Amino acid sequence: MSAETPKPLAVSLGDPAGIGPEVIAKCWDSRGEFGLMPFVAIGDARSVSAVWDGPIEVIDDPRQADSAFDVGLPLIQINSAHVDTPGQPSVAGAHCSLDSLEIAVGLARSGSASAVVTGPVAKEQLYGIGFQHPGQTEFVAERCGISAGNVVMMLAGPTLRTVPVTTHLPLSQVPRALTSALIESRGRAALRGLQRNFGIAEPRLAVSGLNPHAGEGGQLGPEEIEIIAPAIAALAAEGWRVSGPHPADTMFHTSARARYDAALCMYHDQALIPIKALHFEDAVNVTLGLPIVRTAPDHGTAFDIAGLDRADPRPMAAAIRMATESAMLRADCA
Amino acid sequence: MSAETPKPLAVSLGDPAGIGPEVIAKCWDSRGEFGLMPFVAIGDARSVSAVWDGPIEVIDDPRQADSAFDVGLPLIQINSAHVDTPGQPSVAGAHCSLDSLEIAVGLARSGSASAVVTGPVAKEQLYGIGFQHPGQTEFVAERCGISAGNVVMMLAGPTLRTVPVTTHLPLSQVPRALTSALIESRGRAALRGLQRNFGIAEPRLAVSGLNPHAGEGGQLGPEEIEIIAPAIAALAAEGWRVSGPHPADTMFHTSARARYDAALCMYHDQALIPIKALHFEDAVNVTLGLPIVRTAPDHGTAFDIAGLDRADPRPMAAAIRMATESAMLRADCA
Repeated sequence: MSAETPKPLAVSLGDPAGIGPEVIAKCWDSRGEFGLMPFVAIGDARSVSAVWDGPIEVIDDPRQADSAFDVGLPLIQINSAHVDTPGQPSVAGAHCSLDSLEIAVGLARSGSASAVVTGPVAKEQLYGIGFQHPGQTEFVAERCGISAGNVVMMLAGPTLRTVPVTTHLPLSQVPRALTSALIESRGRAALRGLQRNFGIAEPRLAVSGLNPHAGEGGQLGPEEIEIIAPAIAALAAEGWRVSGPHPADTMFHTSARARYDAALCMYHDQALIPIKALHFEDAVNVTLGLPIVRTAPDHGTAFDIAGLDRADPRPMAAAIRMATESAMLRADCA
Repeated sequence: MSAETPKPLAVSLGDPAGIGPEVIAKCWDSRGEFGLMPFVAIGDARSVSAVWDGPIEVIDDPRQADSAFDVGLPLIQINSAHVDTPGQPSVAGAHCSLDSLEIAVGLARSGSASAVVTGPVAKEQLYGIGFQHPGQTEFVAERCGISAGNVVMMLAGPTLRTVPVTTHLPLSQVPRALTSALIESRGRAALRGLQRNFGIAEPRLAVSGLNPHAGEGGQLGPEEIEIIAPAIAALAAEGWRVSGPHPADTMFHTSARARYDAALCMYHDQALIPIKALHFEDAVNVTLGLPIVRTAPDHGTAFDIAGLDRADPRPMAAAIRMATESAMLRADCA
């Protein structure tokens, strides 16, 4: 390894009609200010030049990214059958975004890229071309040979990391979806992820309750006593530093956040309300439990502002930066 | 009125063994720094002197508070049968805290005080002496002749106000407890409260969804379409400025908060997670829908730190300041 050039990050552009191409190009523009190491974009160069006037360096091998990065945005070209107008997604664009994702993950899997950062895709467009996974996370898991049930999503910002136990479920289905086994599994993945991706040797996990005041001793719901506390006890018995169940409303102020490295939350909004309230501009979606490092900005395609030069590149920059840091930590440990 | 002295706020000490006496005394200590107008404490002076060395001015008429306030903490004495040790609540203390509350509310009802601020009580202690209400809010409502169903709790901080539609319910009971009529009623009370207590002539109310992504067009739950949207339409038809249902996770970052004056949330933690994440030190509990102004700090008795000089007076100061401002606004409108 020592004689080789450093490996770049692979960044898929996401849907070519979304804001992915714009924010990735803006990240290259501000690579110094954002403190970004070399990365290579994967997608159709035409979707970038449609929204950005800067230089693009088309390369065919990630090893060229390091030197190209000084000159322009390094890009591995995916030829789309159709050049989308920003804000107007198409079937051809969906194919292009899937191809970009596939290649970016392949580069990371093969070791040609140090990590993968995924640009935002339009799920409905992907479903239209036969995509079978709920989202990019599950696709990446499958390509890595990992069951989707064993990977977890973490939202990570500068002062808070949260992991939802359940994600895209109607709220009424959350209580019956919670089991001690599921909480244990998600908690273990979160703890291992804190070690592997963030280099925290003895991570502290704070587990939320489900009900107001964490059930107030059973008066406001049985789940804390029957389901959550046993999962916490099981993780603690394995030697992990786990606390809770904590009332969710008093877990997220400054001094409370200082007491743990990640919060394990019972449902989508319990995890996402605090992270987005506190870190809307720089929260990163990290997939834990994979053999590769994968991050993504915590926003969608934003078709409504695509091509208007209004997209904020900071979330993408945070995702690239975090992927680099995690990849370096993992390389050090390997 | 013009020849009379200004009316003080009435501040009940709450449970004498809790942190109420300490934080109220500290508010008097720092009345200049906190920008506090004259107030009179209601309770047993001995519970204050047990935790504070400053001067207490026992008075028997709120009209004496204005001049007394320069000399010491004005206090209307409630004789407790027993002087509690800080951190050790008693039956006598529960009686004292209830008497304090009763008198504070009576002073505001009669016009002798401009508003009431309530110190924290121990509900379990109150239940032990036969207290029939879920909390102080419902007691105050009854004393004002208002049905508890028509008052609403607002959590108000410097950059965010939230109102929960449902409060102390197990999460599994929230979906079936939500009705369009309840959301409308809470929304209307919130909007009127923004006018009366905060002086906002044309208040903007943002209504959250219940499910992730506000149900994503029905794919993640029916409540937004069947229950929440009709309530929003009904309020809008009355001429109110109401928006939503919004995905709860993208309602609380800085630029989103700038678009509304209060957020109407479907359940306890949805309202309390963001307010406490952002404004833990200065969120105020405001009761809307009453003929009087009533606020409270958003914390409990904290028996574990009572008497240790560790209690933070800022939430109480924020509650006193907000009560003064609301009382002045109401007086101007009267």
